[in-house]
Amino acid sequence: MKPFFEVQTLEAVHRRMGQLQPLDEESVHIDRAAGRTLARDLVAPHDLPGFPRATMDGYAVRARDTFGASETSPAYLSMVGDVRMGQRPTFALEAGQCARVGTGGMLPGGTDAVAMVEHTRLLDGQTVELTRSLAPGSNVMGPTDDATRGQLLLPAGQRLRPQDVGLLAALGVAEPEVLRRPRLGIISTGDEVVPVERQPAPGQVRDVNTHTLACQSTDAGAEPLLLGLVADDEPALRSRVRQSVQRCELTLLSGGSSVGVRDLTREVFLSFPGAQLLVHGVSVAPGKPFIWVRVGDGAEERHLLGLPGQVASCMVAFHLFVEPMVERLLGREARSFVLFPRIEARLARNLPAAPGRETFARVALREEPDGWIADPVFGKSGLLRTLTASHGLVRVPLGCEGLDADDRVTVLRFP
Amino acid sequence: MKPFFEVQTLEAVHRRMGQLQPLDEESVHIDRAAGRTLARDLVAPHDLPGFPRATMDGYAVRARDTFGASETSPAYLSMVGDVRMGQRPTFALEAGQCARVGTGGMLPGGTDAVAMVEHTRLLDGQTVELTRSLAPGSNVMGPTDDATRGQLLLPAGQRLRPQDVGLLAALGVAEPEVLRRPRLGIISTGDEVVPVERQPAPGQVRDVNTHTLACQSTDAGAEPLLLGLVADDEPALRSRVRQSVQRCELTLLSGGSSVGVRDLTREVFLSFPGAQLLVHGVSVAPGKPFIWVRVGDGAEERHLLGLPGQVASCMVAFHLFVEPMVERLLGREARSFVLFPRIEARLARNLPAAPGRETFARVALREEPDGWIADPVFGKSGLLRTLTASHGLVRVPLGCEGLDADDRVTVLRFP
Repeated sequence: MKPFFEVQTLEAVHRRMGQLQPLDEESVHIDRAAGRTLARDLVAPHDLPGFPRATMDGYAVRARDTFGASETSPAYLSMVGDVRMGQRPTFALEAGQCARVGTGGMLPGGTDAVAMVEHTRLLDGQTVELTRSLAPGSNVMGPTDDATRGQLLLPAGQRLRPQDVGLLAALGVAEPEVLRRPRLGIISTGDEVVPVERQPAPGQVRDVNTHTLACQSTDAGAEPLLLGLVADDEPALRSRVRQSVQRCELTLLSGGSSVGVRDLTREVFLSFPGAQLLVHGVSVAPGKPFIWVRVGDGAEERHLLGLPGQVASCMVAFHLFVEPMVERLLGREARSFVLFPRIEARLARNLPAAPGRETFARVALREEPDGWIADPVFGKSGLLRTLTASHGLVRVPLGCEGLDADDRVTVLRFP
Repeated sequence: MKPFFEVQTLEAVHRRMGQLQPLDEESVHIDRAAGRTLARDLVAPHDLPGFPRATMDGYAVRARDTFGASETSPAYLSMVGDVRMGQRPTFALEAGQCARVGTGGMLPGGTDAVAMVEHTRLLDGQTVELTRSLAPGSNVMGPTDDATRGQLLLPAGQRLRPQDVGLLAALGVAEPEVLRRPRLGIISTGDEVVPVERQPAPGQVRDVNTHTLACQSTDAGAEPLLLGLVADDEPALRSRVRQSVQRCELTLLSGGSSVGVRDLTREVFLSFPGAQLLVHGVSVAPGKPFIWVRVGDGAEERHLLGLPGQVASCMVAFHLFVEPMVERLLGREARSFVLFPRIEARLARNLPAAPGRETFARVALREEPDGWIADPVFGKSGLLRTLTASHGLVRVPLGCEGLDADDRVTVLRFP
């Protein structure tokens, strides 16, 4: 007889995932750091840029020497030198003096503004006529304008964007500490499934889930390990899962769309020493038969995840169950659909929901003059077409039997 | 004397970029195909799944044998066999017969529906009692439900998403033809700039643009080649640009924020045989001093691009000028901000624009009960902080002096 196990809500599953411990750190060169997760707060090790810089080509001046200058009553300054790019000026300026400086050049001591070359005229090689009055700081980037030493610039857990990589470069952090990418072992099963290179006989289909899960894992910031296709029998399945457990924090076993195979998956998962069944069944559609078994603990903790075999269900289940675990192992909140932009839209027609299950329905989007319209894409969850033809998902909350045409919805748009 | 060259609009520049020829094709394995661009239309080589499949565990039946069946008046069918997963059933069914089938199994000849196991009772090992009436097609995926042979499934130019990779797998296209990634040679210049590993002396700053441009290139679907930092002198610059031209379709030279260096960049670019100055100056902020020189033609065509040295300007200029070229070389329209989701928001305060220039202003986003608010992030274009502290850009069209607080705007949100 099957042991009784209570179906849990998605929220409860995410809460439990939120208790996972983030992985350890490693350092990577900034040119491989984009998309990685910062392990520690980035605190400015020094001021940035650290010295006053001209933001225009022109003349470094003392602002007060220019007060009142205008087209009809110019100021006249004595040009005492050139600032060389990348060098600290060897001279400081006295009242009534100025120095030539290019964009990015360092201001000489005694100066606090830059007169744009367009507002000046060099009269005799030594005298500069200036037709504008300048406030202190004009056309100057101050020593701490980008960062002040000790300032928190990026929080731990930040997924590094190009501009964040730029900030690391500016501060000389060439090898930032990032969280190690979770390793995801991917196994497909199903006696009807053949590898993509093989011509399926009647009754057979090619393995899709291995390849979609691999793409999704990479996009989520994890490192997929493709462990291939395995027959629906216990010794083969157990041996392949063991291989994965030895190398990967998470093992994704997709397939087993029939009840018999689902039972086998759970049996195999529970056959590992110390295995603990944390979830079997979630009140969500698609993704109801999700299985989560934990093996080991602490740094040796491994997670075995049973995902639906139906190709479209499997893809959605990745976002519902695997993505939050990856997020958490990377030190962030256990959340789904992190990289999916949200779009507000109106439903084109009624959208029924699975009774008693939080439903994620596929929709196509089109833009009309008064905003976005979301068209439900109906079709069986084994159909890939329902995903290639749709642009995102609409969530129908638990306890709601469906949504009506013209309802306003938030679409989770595929990235 | 400098040759006269007219400042062009961004639209005109994009129009010209739209005339570029897409690159040649190469084949990649599907597990490396995510994010790549499909070179040719994907037309279904066969029906998918190609045979009728059960979508539930249960019994394959002839629907008409079930008409009128109910809890109070069940139908009784004679069970004549089991469908083995992945095999074509060796038997066909006559009237009044049924066969056991698992989810994903092939329907035997003569059947057109599947009775869910939950709605049946196996009475004596041979007789199945069925308490529901089934329409033809119930719980069955038809042979062409996912694709019909000859059907256009994905258009050439499609950037492959995980579900597209899944579709390729399902159809056995293990090595799809994709467009070769444009190679982008990245060179930084500026006598005040030092490599990220070096401690800058007073007056010096570290090279940021090399690293941000590399991240942005990868994100855009191109292949960056980091050619490092080069001094602001003509022979050094020309030699480095030549190295890039030999290997890369696009050469990005950033730096030269001062007028002298900009002139040098143009001179070096124009020193290549057959060089043609296509753009020098665009009515856009940031990005006004953009230079585009074409060298060679046909398959030997190379493009030399001068980008601003200011770090924030350089990042925005990548999206304005480089991204549309990459898009076009990948066979799509020459567009900017392709991967930036659009968010409708209200401006928190007035946003002035550069006169006579289409302006892309940095904004921070926050969500309030009645929608998104965009807060302009002011600051000099040399400041990275203006990008790390902002969430996206707001476009102020040419001819508009600025936007007012409470105006509704579309924010191009950083991905």
